Amino acid sequence: MDYQQILEDIYKEILPFAKKGSQADYIPALAKVNPDQFGMCLETVSGEVYHFMQSDTRFSIQSITKVFALAMCLSLKGEDVWKRVGKEPSGTAFNSLVQLEVEKGIPRNPFINAGAIVIADILLSELEDAESEFIGFVRSLCGNDEIDYNEEVAQSERQCGYLNAAIANLLKYYGTIENDIEKVLMFYFKMCSVEMSCRELAKAFMAFTNRQPFDYAGYKLSTSRIKRLNAVMQTCGFYDEAGEFSYLVGLPGKSGVGGGIVAIYPMRYSVAVWSPRLNSKGNSIMGMKALELLTTATQESIF
Amino acid sequence: MDYQQILEDIYKEILPFAKKGSQADYIPALAKVNPDQFGMCLETVSGEVYHFMQSDTRFSIQSITKVFALAMCLSLKGEDVWKRVGKEPSGTAFNSLVQLEVEKGIPRNPFINAGAIVIADILLSELEDAESEFIGFVRSLCGNDEIDYNEEVAQSERQCGYLNAAIANLLKYYGTIENDIEKVLMFYFKMCSVEMSCRELAKAFMAFTNRQPFDYAGYKLSTSRIKRLNAVMQTCGFYDEAGEFSYLVGLPGKSGVGGGIVAIYPMRYSVAVWSPRLNSKGNSIMGMKALELLTTATQESIF
Amino acid sequence: MDYQQILEDIYKEILPFAKKGSQADYIPALAKVNPDQFGMCLETVSGEVYHFMQSDTRFSIQSITKVFALAMCLSLKGEDVWKRVGKEPSGTAFNSLVQLEVEKGIPRNPFINAGAIVIADILLSELEDAESEFIGFVRSLCGNDEIDYNEEVAQSERQCGYLNAAIANLLKYYGTIENDIEKVLMFYFKMCSVEMSCRELAKAFMAFTNRQPFDYAGYKLSTSRIKRLNAVMQTCGFYDEAGEFSYLVGLPGKSGVGGGIVAIYPMRYSVAVWSPRLNSKGNSIMGMKALELLTTATQESIF
Amino acid sequence: MDYQQILEDIYKEILPFAKKGSQADYIPALAKVNPDQFGMCLETVSGEVYHFMQSDTRFSIQSITKVFALAMCLSLKGEDVWKRVGKEPSGTAFNSLVQLEVEKGIPRNPFINAGAIVIADILLSELEDAESEFIGFVRSLCGNDEIDYNEEVAQSERQCGYLNAAIANLLKYYGTIENDIEKVLMFYFKMCSVEMSCRELAKAFMAFTNRQPFDYAGYKLSTSRIKRLNAVMQTCGFYDEAGEFSYLVGLPGKSGVGGGIVAIYPMRYSVAVWSPRLNSKGNSIMGMKALELLTTATQESIF
Repeated sequence: MDYQQILEDIYKEILPFAKKGSQADYIPALAKVNPDQFGMCLETVSGEVYHFMQSDTRFSIQSITKVFALAMCLSLKGEDVWKRVGKEPSGTAFNSLVQLEVEKGIPRNPFINAGAIVIADILLSELEDAESEFIGFVRSLCGNDEIDYNEEVAQSERQCGYLNAAIANLLKYYGTIENDIEKVLMFYFKMCSVEMSCRELAKAFMAFTNRQPFDYAGYKLSTSRIKRLNAVMQTCGFYDEAGEFSYLVGLPGKSGVGGGIVAIYPMRYSVAVWSPRLNSKGNSIMGMKALELLTTATQESIF
Repeated sequence: MDYQQILEDIYKEILPFAKKGSQADYIPALAKVNPDQFGMCLETVSGEVYHFMQSDTRFSIQSITKVFALAMCLSLKGEDVWKRVGKEPSGTAFNSLVQLEVEKGIPRNPFINAGAIVIADILLSELEDAESEFIGFVRSLCGNDEIDYNEEVAQSERQCGYLNAAIANLLKYYGTIENDIEKVLMFYFKMCSVEMSCRELAKAFMAFTNRQPFDYAGYKLSTSRIKRLNAVMQTCGFYDEAGEFSYLVGLPGKSGVGGGIVAIYPMRYSVAVWSPRLNSKGNSIMGMKALELLTTATQESIF
Repeated sequence: MDYQQILEDIYKEILPFAKKGSQADYIPALAKVNPDQFGMCLETVSGEVYHFMQSDTRFSIQSITKVFALAMCLSLKGEDVWKRVGKEPSGTAFNSLVQLEVEKGIPRNPFINAGAIVIADILLSELEDAESEFIGFVRSLCGNDEIDYNEEVAQSERQCGYLNAAIANLLKYYGTIENDIEKVLMFYFKMCSVEMSCRELAKAFMAFTNRQPFDYAGYKLSTSRIKRLNAVMQTCGFYDEAGEFSYLVGLPGKSGVGGGIVAIYPMRYSVAVWSPRLNSKGNSIMGMKALELLTTATQESIF
Repeated sequence: MDYQQILEDIYKEILPFAKKGSQADYIPALAKVNPDQFGMCLETVSGEVYHFMQSDTRFSIQSITKVFALAMCLSLKGEDVWKRVGKEPSGTAFNSLVQLEVEKGIPRNPFINAGAIVIADILLSELEDAESEFIGFVRSLCGNDEIDYNEEVAQSERQCGYLNAAIANLLKYYGTIENDIEKVLMFYFKMCSVEMSCRELAKAFMAFTNRQPFDYAGYKLSTSRIKRLNAVMQTCGFYDEAGEFSYLVGLPGKSGVGGGIVAIYPMRYSVAVWSPRLNSKGNSIMGMKALELLTTATQESIF
């Protein structure tokens, strides 16, 4: 499979979409990013790396961070995680409070904001210094100690993060989170603020792709558990566009409002793509299209 | 892989669940089935067949029929199907009207009742004799002309099918269905009443598993389309337990309130299991457990 | 109080609204009515009658009929009525199914469609010939035996009444209605099809206004029960505009999509107004405005 | 009308309910109140005062304060208030977030928590020292300068007020409140913490009852506006039990989780009742019953 050629062909095909959509502007620090960027990187299990355009430019990974947080949490708590959060697709937007109220404070899954806030709470309870443990884990996944939080983005999100604060207060009301609301929110926003490039993301997700022993910074996961985590990505990774992504791309993946998307083809490759302009569901337009073209061109998907 | 041994081991492990749950009783004709039955059949793409217990006993396939109906519909209309029905997981019970009202009559996906009723309506509009075409298609998938509707079950369901009648009327109100309500409902219930055994179901689903040219009774599907249909099964095949099934089993599948479940492992095998006792979500308890044990034992899943 | 002058002044003030809104067109037989009509009639407890414009033209009373049906039902069953239907304002549109599903088949109040269908079901169970009993009761309230159903309107509504059929099926599913769905729906539509003029409506509602012994065609109500029925009109008579009507007009009342509105000022007067053009909530625009001006001019309301 | 006798008779009749229900315990400072207390006071427009039991004991008026806040707000802003908050009954519990999300941040009415928080925000924007202005207004209504906030209760509510904090954050997200969230919440809780006795409440509500020129501490309202405020009390004063109260009592009124209820019979009397044990809807059990018996005994209600 000539992945480099496929990637280049994809880029030509998605060019007409280059000006479609607009970047997330509700977080001031994110609104400053040049929206006309695109990067893509595919890494195979045998270690070949194919990349294209701004694949080394770091961007705010935002919700993609939820995969790392869940992985840490599963390593620490095992199946007990599911006592605090569900694993069903939400069928609603990523930030809906309705479902949370109807379901009495148990978030539908760990990839909607409410669920990720609960995961943040669990990590805070389990770890003495959750912030440094988390970034250490992510650095270990990438083998790169320069990966870091962006304090400015985190602060910017906290200052205008009224909806997430509403969610955290509602969770506290229902008793689903244990720690101080401010502490939980700040940690949640810190995790979202991590900056990585497409190359680094593809590398980090290789750990969920290659079925090698998973042991990073002391956090271990069995193969069975990695497969289950991938299953959650498949059904819940794209909010109310999970079905669409599954249909068009056919791989487990996770998107973030920074414009990044990562997907994995178990035992084959991980792939990261980034472009800041989003569709109405909050997913990168060029990113979605690029991944659809990738699995169409390769005729490969998990289905 | 010694599938026969694995199946026999599974049976021992699920025996403790044999009396858990209860069969669907809202359809009088289904309530008469002996609930203490279990059958399982696994067919590999190379044609080996492993089966166990009542694997030749026919039962009401109920919602499993929605996969056949969608396949026919995709063959006839292609991607236009998605103008009439969505492909996102529903996050609610299979028979909810709330979502339908909120979303102005566009069912969330073709595997909840509302969506399957729309599919029935499309088939009625496209085909002169939808009933005989449909059963012909199913027979062709199985290579068995004895497969048939159970008229008594269909009538029984229609007579007490107030909720589905409510859904059909609401769809008609929103203009989502074209044909006469009674005609659409009756065809929908007829499709649900088809009776098949585990062996026949495993055989029929081989067509979605083996990536051979799909051409049955004149209905053709490209490989790409089959993969997409499988993706919809993955995200929407188990109502509000889709995430759970994906997590525990890791294969695309479809369940029915008759107690049957079919799952496929693309390019490897299709598997059908049947036991009438259901959990609170309407899925077979022994069936769910059996499939979880299967992918645990084989260490194989799409993730 | 010079009511005749007040009515004439009102007419001048509402003329600018004469072409605003549009009549109900989802019922073909109603769409044929000339929308540019207006009638008003006020009758005092001492028997004076003031009327204006097309106050003798009969029109389809539609949902106003629900007051008569509830009165009959309260006479027959007393407080037991409230075991089958609530008495809280709905906060949603008159025809919403969402609430019904969330609340497991108990309609919020007898003035939304679902509630009125339950009332129709109770009358059918209680009376041997509900149709003739009901029209007899209405005739008795008006002292006019020419009041009648409009068979054509009833049939027209049934033929396109998909939403009400959805509601009735959902009620049947939850076990809230006892009789055959078709029979209940047909009786419901018959009651809605009754035609009365503003003069006749004002006369009929005098029975809820004057605190004289209530005994019509054998149906009796105590003063306490009449006051309670009036309370339900106040809180539930205008669907999701109940608060607005209460705020602007300050009287208990009931509207219908035929463009009629009746309101009562206990121990003072009943007033009926009619004009077919409706606002987005399904209430007559000129009618709402006329009643607002009436209580503003008279400085009288129950508050 | 021998109101004193009626009050004494009422007390005998409600005694069997004395131990039913339980007091609000989610606010620690309120949970300390002796629940076995009861007070009642009726004041006529001609100045007669009838009272009984602990009618001079002050208690936390909680949501009753919302009437005072709305009155001030209407005086300051007139009908513009309704651009920021609706006036329709909510049909859901007093603290629901679902409705707020569905309706994009416009609270249904000023008497649910979300609406009262918006009113608090308006007062903060309009007044330089809202806290002293508000208590001055309430003192003026009672003619008693000893009425005051209970700082401990306010702090206690803020500390565990996660749900109200969720609501305030959601309102801020939708742009419905202008001021700092903490400031708005603290003012809201301060207003709720005001302590008054039944005698003082009956006196204060006389201003909404007697149609005398309304001018208290400089805040003026026209008779028309008072009547409209009373209409909002009627339809929205008891959360999802507004219909029940209207049906059983037939007077506009407002309840609080401190166990107080105030009702008014325009041009006749105002009446306050207090008993801490609440029903499942958050309304005083003995209070509701006492008022029902009052209007039954007097045969008087607005209907």
